[in-house]
Amino acid sequence: MLATFMYGPGDVRVEEAEEPKILAATDAIVRITLSCVCGSDLHAYHGGGTRSGIARMGHEFLGVVEETGADVQTLKKGDLVLAPFVWADNTCEFCREGLHTSCRHGGSWGNGDVGGGQAEAVRVPQADGTLVKLPVPADSELLPDLLTLSDVMCTGYHAAVKGRVSAETTVTVIGDGAVGLSAVLSAKLLGAPRIILMGRHPARTDLGVEFGATDVVAERGEEGVAKVQDLTNGDGTHVVIEAVGFPAAYDQAFGAVRAGGTVSRVGVPQYQDANVGFARMFFRNITLTGGVAPARAYIEQLMPKILDGTIHPGRVFDRTVALPDIAQAYQAMNDREALKVLVRP
Amino acid sequence: MLATFMYGPGDVRVEEAEEPKILAATDAIVRITLSCVCGSDLHAYHGGGTRSGIARMGHEFLGVVEETGADVQTLKKGDLVLAPFVWADNTCEFCREGLHTSCRHGGSWGNGDVGGGQAEAVRVPQADGTLVKLPVPADSELLPDLLTLSDVMCTGYHAAVKGRVSAETTVTVIGDGAVGLSAVLSAKLLGAPRIILMGRHPARTDLGVEFGATDVVAERGEEGVAKVQDLTNGDGTHVVIEAVGFPAAYDQAFGAVRAGGTVSRVGVPQYQDANVGFARMFFRNITLTGGVAPARAYIEQLMPKILDGTIHPGRVFDRTVALPDIAQAYQAMNDREALKVLVRP
Repeated sequence: MLATFMYGPGDVRVEEAEEPKILAATDAIVRITLSCVCGSDLHAYHGGGTRSGIARMGHEFLGVVEETGADVQTLKKGDLVLAPFVWADNTCEFCREGLHTSCRHGGSWGNGDVGGGQAEAVRVPQADGTLVKLPVPADSELLPDLLTLSDVMCTGYHAAVKGRVSAETTVTVIGDGAVGLSAVLSAKLLGAPRIILMGRHPARTDLGVEFGATDVVAERGEEGVAKVQDLTNGDGTHVVIEAVGFPAAYDQAFGAVRAGGTVSRVGVPQYQDANVGFARMFFRNITLTGGVAPARAYIEQLMPKILDGTIHPGRVFDRTVALPDIAQAYQAMNDREALKVLVRP
Repeated sequence: MLATFMYGPGDVRVEEAEEPKILAATDAIVRITLSCVCGSDLHAYHGGGTRSGIARMGHEFLGVVEETGADVQTLKKGDLVLAPFVWADNTCEFCREGLHTSCRHGGSWGNGDVGGGQAEAVRVPQADGTLVKLPVPADSELLPDLLTLSDVMCTGYHAAVKGRVSAETTVTVIGDGAVGLSAVLSAKLLGAPRIILMGRHPARTDLGVEFGATDVVAERGEEGVAKVQDLTNGDGTHVVIEAVGFPAAYDQAFGAVRAGGTVSRVGVPQYQDANVGFARMFFRNITLTGGVAPARAYIEQLMPKILDGTIHPGRVFDRTVALPDIAQAYQAMNDREALKVLVRP
């Protein structure tokens, strides 16, 4: 089968790899029918990640169950299933608390003897806990929308949930990438009356407005912060969602947040140390939260809203490539020519 | 009148100062009958604060109203009153949200034309909003307990509230100073079933146990973290209250916190940059919260528990000095000979 490998910065290759096999009784093999490229894959593409050596890429996919281990109870061959971006047993106390990313028996795609999702097939550990059956036909037009529940939509939603967005909170979203736009959609779902989107790519911020942004601020840095202050009586917003991951966005978030408010990060931080000092954070009682999204915790919650047409998060996909051409997808996203790219085997 | 001044590191002096006068119609003059020295005063004592020049000290006091401005409605000469550690109008939207430290018309003691609380008298701006009448006689034995509502008890309570301590959360408190012990008492009040106190002064940790600590860990740094992990099945606690303010305590807090948990800081941070990176915080979905306590927001909530004997937060006071001898109080607290010192004029 074909699978995607990152050999080094900017060097993505699709190569023949061994067909996955059942290794544990709780495994399933899934034949992947739709996957995509994540903004966080670009960090690896830039060589900025923590991966070493050749990485097996992809952590967002849906497909058809091909084979199940002896202990798999809820799935059978032929089921159309979605995988969240980490695998998890969905039964340990962390999973029960909705923190599947810290599952006692979980892990991430492309690590150890588990492959990545930008491939033709993959072994899924803890299949009963990890996979969610999709109640649509295999050729449903909703598949791109449903695929966003693997990661990007749930990541935006996680940002909003951790930031405690509600009908009583104003929100700023920093970043007009697919996660930022998903965060806008999530803040709207949670009832935020005002959603300021900070981004400078009109095609993206236009989609953000359709998703629910009430204001767009194209300026960045101090100028952008001043704009948010202008829009909010000099106070900033109750919640700031940081969906970028670079230090400048972190600083911008603290400039845009209201005293007593919350900065919720879902952009993977490309830094370690940052200002958490007295004036920045402590005196103003700012909370810093967020983190890797336990997508599995949100899938059942958000799926009905896709099925009934309330939300169309799949609109973040603006291009499709065939798996052998996936390097073009990385390139296009890196060059900001594509927002988020679907991959078909 | 006498007032306390910090001339520089280690140089505390009590000197004659001008009697305070009503400057605005919303002012009151309070003759101070009881005050104390704060752990945060020691930061100034070490020269570590942000103050420049000669500082007027003290932000925790109670006393008797001596004079009121024309617009003061709720107070009259002779009222026994308590002041929180910032003054505030108690009517702006930040105050209504319980964030009096960000009051639109508030400020701090010892700044501008407002004196400090380690003095014989002080001008209190926004007197109606700032001062809380004490429903006890002027010679009540409860005065030291009530005085803790100026700052230390409310600061410990703020840490627990911001950390969302409840009957469902385990808690670690780092620091056996008066704030740390107040945090233990607060966590107990909020129902925490397990409270691990990290401190190495037996007299203090013994009081912590009386306040509700279920475990005491005397070790610090990595050794201390390992002890907390041992006590919690390797997971850490849901909430860690950091009541010290030094970088080592910050690191320790992240070592002791459970995935998905919260580090709540009330030790004034003596640093600006710190690790908020992927492994430390983001991957484990840790929240960092806390900040300067809006004591005013908690006074009415906590006072009944003092009046009915549920809590005795004044037990953190283990020494009393006369105002002219206040330098001895700073010295004793700095040398860890006294936990927290009362000051009588």
